[in-house]
Amino acid sequence: MTLIEAGASDAADPLHSVRDRFALPEGVIYLDGNSLGALPRTTPARLQQVATQQWGDGLIRSWNAHDWIGAARRIGAKIAPFIGAQPDEVVVADSTSANLYKLLVAALKARPGRATILSEPGNFPTDLYIADGAAWSVGDARIRTVPVDTIVDAIDDDVAVVMLTHVHYKSGAMLDMAGITAAAQARGALVLWDLSHSVGAVPLDLTGCNADLAVGCGYKYLNGGPGAPAFLYVAKRHHATLRSPLSGWLGHAAPFDFSDDYAPAADISRFQCGTPPILALAALEEGIAQFDGVDRDALIAKSRALGDSCIALVEARCPELTLISPRDAARRGSHVSFRHPHAYAICQALIDRGVIGDFRAPDALRLGFAPLYIGFADVWRAVDILRRILDDRSWDDPRYHARNAVT
Amino acid sequence: MTLIEAGASDAADPLHSVRDRFALPEGVIYLDGNSLGALPRTTPARLQQVATQQWGDGLIRSWNAHDWIGAARRIGAKIAPFIGAQPDEVVVADSTSANLYKLLVAALKARPGRATILSEPGNFPTDLYIADGAAWSVGDARIRTVPVDTIVDAIDDDVAVVMLTHVHYKSGAMLDMAGITAAAQARGALVLWDLSHSVGAVPLDLTGCNADLAVGCGYKYLNGGPGAPAFLYVAKRHHATLRSPLSGWLGHAAPFDFSDDYAPAADISRFQCGTPPILALAALEEGIAQFDGVDRDALIAKSRALGDSCIALVEARCPELTLISPRDAARRGSHVSFRHPHAYAICQALIDRGVIGDFRAPDALRLGFAPLYIGFADVWRAVDILRRILDDRSWDDPRYHARNAVT
Repeated sequence: MTLIEAGASDAADPLHSVRDRFALPEGVIYLDGNSLGALPRTTPARLQQVATQQWGDGLIRSWNAHDWIGAARRIGAKIAPFIGAQPDEVVVADSTSANLYKLLVAALKARPGRATILSEPGNFPTDLYIADGAAWSVGDARIRTVPVDTIVDAIDDDVAVVMLTHVHYKSGAMLDMAGITAAAQARGALVLWDLSHSVGAVPLDLTGCNADLAVGCGYKYLNGGPGAPAFLYVAKRHHATLRSPLSGWLGHAAPFDFSDDYAPAADISRFQCGTPPILALAALEEGIAQFDGVDRDALIAKSRALGDSCIALVEARCPELTLISPRDAARRGSHVSFRHPHAYAICQALIDRGVIGDFRAPDALRLGFAPLYIGFADVWRAVDILRRILDDRSWDDPRYHARNAVT
Repeated sequence: MTLIEAGASDAADPLHSVRDRFALPEGVIYLDGNSLGALPRTTPARLQQVATQQWGDGLIRSWNAHDWIGAARRIGAKIAPFIGAQPDEVVVADSTSANLYKLLVAALKARPGRATILSEPGNFPTDLYIADGAAWSVGDARIRTVPVDTIVDAIDDDVAVVMLTHVHYKSGAMLDMAGITAAAQARGALVLWDLSHSVGAVPLDLTGCNADLAVGCGYKYLNGGPGAPAFLYVAKRHHATLRSPLSGWLGHAAPFDFSDDYAPAADISRFQCGTPPILALAALEEGIAQFDGVDRDALIAKSRALGDSCIALVEARCPELTLISPRDAARRGSHVSFRHPHAYAICQALIDRGVIGDFRAPDALRLGFAPLYIGFADVWRAVDILRRILDDRSWDDPRYHARNAVT
């Protein structure tokens, strides 16, 4: 692919104009929307409006007048079509980590006599750390990790819940949700899917997969802003039986009765906890609104084509890098990773030249393609700059060695 | 006190001009800052700046460039002087409910052989609900409530942790933090204080009280906005031994090493969980900044004087209402509650006439005096309108009977 061909692909892209909905800085090719989605142009005004009119003028009255009290359910219902769920099976609450914890403890308690959380090594760290905390909390429970291609065989009578990330944060590999879910359920286990790297970029059909539980992130492809609230999904058949350990007042059946005794809401609201973060929820709702009018099939096709073109260009022009991600786009999320011994310094050099990707320890360069605002010419230019960095051996530059924290 | 005298008190108030820092709507007397603090004038611009410059232009780079990664600790350190703690003993994280959960489970686990969370009936509901959830999570634990004046005697060998709200959400009664803490510790229990209705309005000295654990709210007197992030305090002597059940990656000793194994940070950071909510944290930091240059003794003196004047005016002019709150300002928070059989309808009628207080079931009218922006003439006018509502028997008006959710 030449730059001219890439430009032609952009011109033919039915989503090309959607990019204008985002306030991307000049001179930057942003290939990290899988870590932090870009700023929608309308979000600052929305924040302004919520702060000045709803909070400033409405004050406490806005809990009713502007439906603050319903925001977590309302936005959850808007996320539902992204994941193939019913509107009343999704709620926005807390962080992805906290939601993982809620559902892991709920699952362990719902499967007495089973004490194992089964996962894969190298899962996103917070998932494993939270599983460790959930097992420690309930006591007499444990986390076990096995290579993901052996996970179905590892589901024995002690497994209460299988916890997996649908699209791997590093490799981008996408798991077989329907197959693993069915196999786990056949062995009496629940399955908890982390959709953080999936939602807004790949096809998801939780209902069709008969999924039990899921969580996901608001600040990646959903464009909700740094540290945006997360969401959780619980299949309706589990609403009456699964209990949240974080039984805060917003999950109560009648939060404004102020009774001393806890009684969980009958529906998905039982997985809410504390007072919802209204400013952050407004930004998340605005982030989700950027998908309005966007054809979902076209979005997914574009995501795959961007990844394919990146792989083809890197393999043709930068053979020093080794592909980590699946070559088959249907088995991949919307990011692609490559291995290189100097990946960290290469990533810093790329950022320095306006190409923002990220590094994942120990040696992965990760490039994400948020299909709402990344185009084919972006990919071409990014690989061109990568080629020059390799030619320059930029990793010899000590400026690119200092380790920084990047989430 | 006459309106003229109230005006004179305002004129003599050294904090009177601080009110100009807040964007209070015309025609409203806002006596609910104890539920949701008012909007600081500078917060919308701060949100705008964080959204457009830090998020929009800085993108993922702002985790370092704008110290997003340090925000939870930085703002925690700013809260420390409000509660008499060291800067490295406080961190902002999650909601008050989630923080209660973390510290209750941590306390139960740290006191093996003790299985009781001791609290008082009528504590703020989320505290009791969360205690229920914490006890359920660890199993073989329970919550027990006894009248607060008998709580010290009730601390037996089974009590792992005493959980109390320092200023009661309904009555405004303030507990003896030093005395209860010492008594509980003498009996081998930890004490967890909920400072939600205290911080920013009453004197607090956690270090002087040898406090163990505390949580508090960011959206009341700290003006952080609806559903603002909360904070938690853990005395330094407990940092190495107490573990958070919500062991998310931000509480890891080395979050960016992406190792599979959980190892908690050595310091207060171990009580962080997921990715911090940057927009909400910015609003909270701006809320706290409204106390800059405000003399803490003057603030507390004003809070007490406002409550005293409200009690005196209501008792003189509205004897139909019965004081629930302590008469002694030194034993009271910055809000005052009265009982009336028609409290709900009276509260609605007050709101309708521009006086925003709130109702707490079953029969309490609660009026809060955020000393940064409420004056003595506000109190006089509010009581004057209350008198007219009583004269009108406004509770006969069916408009004021429909129950709304107000937090």
